Amino acid sequence: MVSIVAANFAKFGKREEDIFSISSESAMPIVDKFRDAIDFVVVSNSYSGEFNGISGLNSLLTTHLAMDDLPSMRVDNASGSGGSAILAAKSLVASGEARNVLVIGTEKMTGYPTKKSTGIIASLLPPEERSGGLSLPSLAAFMARAYMREFSPTRESIAMVAVKNHHNGAMNPYAHFQSEVSLEKVLASKVIADPLRIFEYCPVSDGAVSLLVSSDADSSSLANRTVKIAGTGAGSGVSSIASRESLVTIESVKESSAKAFRSSGTKPDDVDIAELHDMASILEIVESEDVGFFKKGEGWKALENGETAIGGRLPINTSGGLNSKGHPIGASGVAQAAEIYLQLTGQAGKRQVKNASTGFSLSMAGFGNNSISIVYGVN
Amino acid sequence: MVSIVAANFAKFGKREEDIFSISSESAMPIVDKFRDAIDFVVVSNSYSGEFNGISGLNSLLTTHLAMDDLPSMRVDNASGSGGSAILAAKSLVASGEARNVLVIGTEKMTGYPTKKSTGIIASLLPPEERSGGLSLPSLAAFMARAYMREFSPTRESIAMVAVKNHHNGAMNPYAHFQSEVSLEKVLASKVIADPLRIFEYCPVSDGAVSLLVSSDADSSSLANRTVKIAGTGAGSGVSSIASRESLVTIESVKESSAKAFRSSGTKPDDVDIAELHDMASILEIVESEDVGFFKKGEGWKALENGETAIGGRLPINTSGGLNSKGHPIGASGVAQAAEIYLQLTGQAGKRQVKNASTGFSLSMAGFGNNSISIVYGVN
Repeated sequence: MVSIVAANFAKFGKREEDIFSISSESAMPIVDKFRDAIDFVVVSNSYSGEFNGISGLNSLLTTHLAMDDLPSMRVDNASGSGGSAILAAKSLVASGEARNVLVIGTEKMTGYPTKKSTGIIASLLPPEERSGGLSLPSLAAFMARAYMREFSPTRESIAMVAVKNHHNGAMNPYAHFQSEVSLEKVLASKVIADPLRIFEYCPVSDGAVSLLVSSDADSSSLANRTVKIAGTGAGSGVSSIASRESLVTIESVKESSAKAFRSSGTKPDDVDIAELHDMASILEIVESEDVGFFKKGEGWKALENGETAIGGRLPINTSGGLNSKGHPIGASGVAQAAEIYLQLTGQAGKRQVKNASTGFSLSMAGFGNNSISIVYGVN
Repeated sequence: MVSIVAANFAKFGKREEDIFSISSESAMPIVDKFRDAIDFVVVSNSYSGEFNGISGLNSLLTTHLAMDDLPSMRVDNASGSGGSAILAAKSLVASGEARNVLVIGTEKMTGYPTKKSTGIIASLLPPEERSGGLSLPSLAAFMARAYMREFSPTRESIAMVAVKNHHNGAMNPYAHFQSEVSLEKVLASKVIADPLRIFEYCPVSDGAVSLLVSSDADSSSLANRTVKIAGTGAGSGVSSIASRESLVTIESVKESSAKAFRSSGTKPDDVDIAELHDMASILEIVESEDVGFFKKGEGWKALENGETAIGGRLPINTSGGLNSKGHPIGASGVAQAAEIYLQLTGQAGKRQVKNASTGFSLSMAGFGNNSISIVYGVN
């Protein structure tokens, strides 16, 4: 078994500092404490070339951290990079290639006009869809319309993802947005891609987060409070959205989640707390169904009933999610694991969920091109 | 134990096709034969964003290969990406996360002015050295001068790396350059960074190569001729060249190689054939010493004596190396493993080395920022 023994955030948001400083801000408290144990560094990052004009980021970052002596690699899987990086780190440890892997999820994206940022990120779409002018925000709008047509949710229930996640983010000192937003304000905000509005999309953010992923032999001696990676699953679906059978189901999420539950010997009902990939409001609802938490077409009801709020039966995105915490692409999947670690070890402050012992995270590449699901347990 | 059960090249060189076509050319023969067994795809690539305007390459590539159902990730470690990708694939298999991983090393770099390409690649240097105008070719020239000062090799011996590797490349149908070059011609060619000349540097190339990395449980049923990954080691050194203690030793190579020999229970003398990272002529000589094949300061003598030629005691870069085969960055480390696979299974055609049973490859990021060494054996 492999465990997470430490997690630390740099503040997400629009940051003045460069990618080295932000990454270092997240990593240094872990490096200071566990320097001698760390024997490999995995950097989760997608766009250092496009946004920062930097290649070989992993080596430059270990140099910046004065850990030149440690081998490293960069893992990229677009917005699912964090999940893939944890999968790689877990595999390095489980196979004996390393004992204690420092995972640094980082992205520095702000400072460009939104159109340019969106264009860079749209470079993950199939060429034929990209040249047709599609972008990730417009795909989410298609999904919302299809979901509304098929399952007749209240429009309010979809917008409530933003209300709930802003409420949670307001209690997260590392979140990009730390203020509540009312349902009225969400529904009156600017339309980005009809019917979805600006508060229903994640912002463009800078940010970094670090984890220490350790073998069982090491974890118990390194820390008192650790969280085990109980199971993992990677799944994949059709990249071309036009070729998918359904717009209201994400096949890769179903597959990765089924694998993660199988490999951990758990089931969706066992989960006490989950972080999902809410790049757009509708995605949280659709994913909550595809993971298996709710029946298809009923995720919006659970949300409307407060079941996914802190204090509800299954709190989702207690961190604020991508929607409020922000979405520095390479950092997001690592941040999900960090939030689960904080929650399961009782370090989540004002947003602490009581008596949570099983956690779940879903890291997703592109618009569900592939997904990585992880089940966590208390050691 | 984890094995390589198949390897296939796309022709390296200046290619008209896009990165998807080149990658597919290398992967399709393996996909056609082993489609049902493959359960994960690792793409080794560094610069799809910078050179091709593409992100999320792994998902787009699995789509292009009609393997949308397979999870994937991209592993990047600059010019050491291939070594890291094999390390990741091996770890995924050894930890039970996957059983049969298709590794695709690919880069499409030509079509830009050399100055632009060199500038993009120089983005892996520490900012302070990059802004001082350093590039990888100029660092190699510093190394050559320091080596000449310290060990007084003949100038010819250094140039002979290019002569030997072009000779080998002429027998490799996938090499970028497939023609011999004389010592006189190398030494009369254009100076790139004094004292090194253009024939002593690898070209800018497009290319792709694919491997199937399998668990023992699967490999014997999938193929008759397989090569085991007997040991791996990752090492790291100081990225800032100005901060290194010596310019004629690469610490990361010493460390990664010592680890690989230790983990495989072999020693340098056991190696029958090796692929080294000859981005510049001098690097092959320095690396051949740091791996442990020859004493420090004596690698040039071994070369001059023909010990590293095909037919010599320890043939190095039978593929033509980066120097002649070309250096599509994300593909190079995977290509080294593919060459060893072909050699150890008797499929290396005109350049076949007789009675080789232990192979070695050195994949290096940047100018030795970090290194991955792999020892291979016959199953």
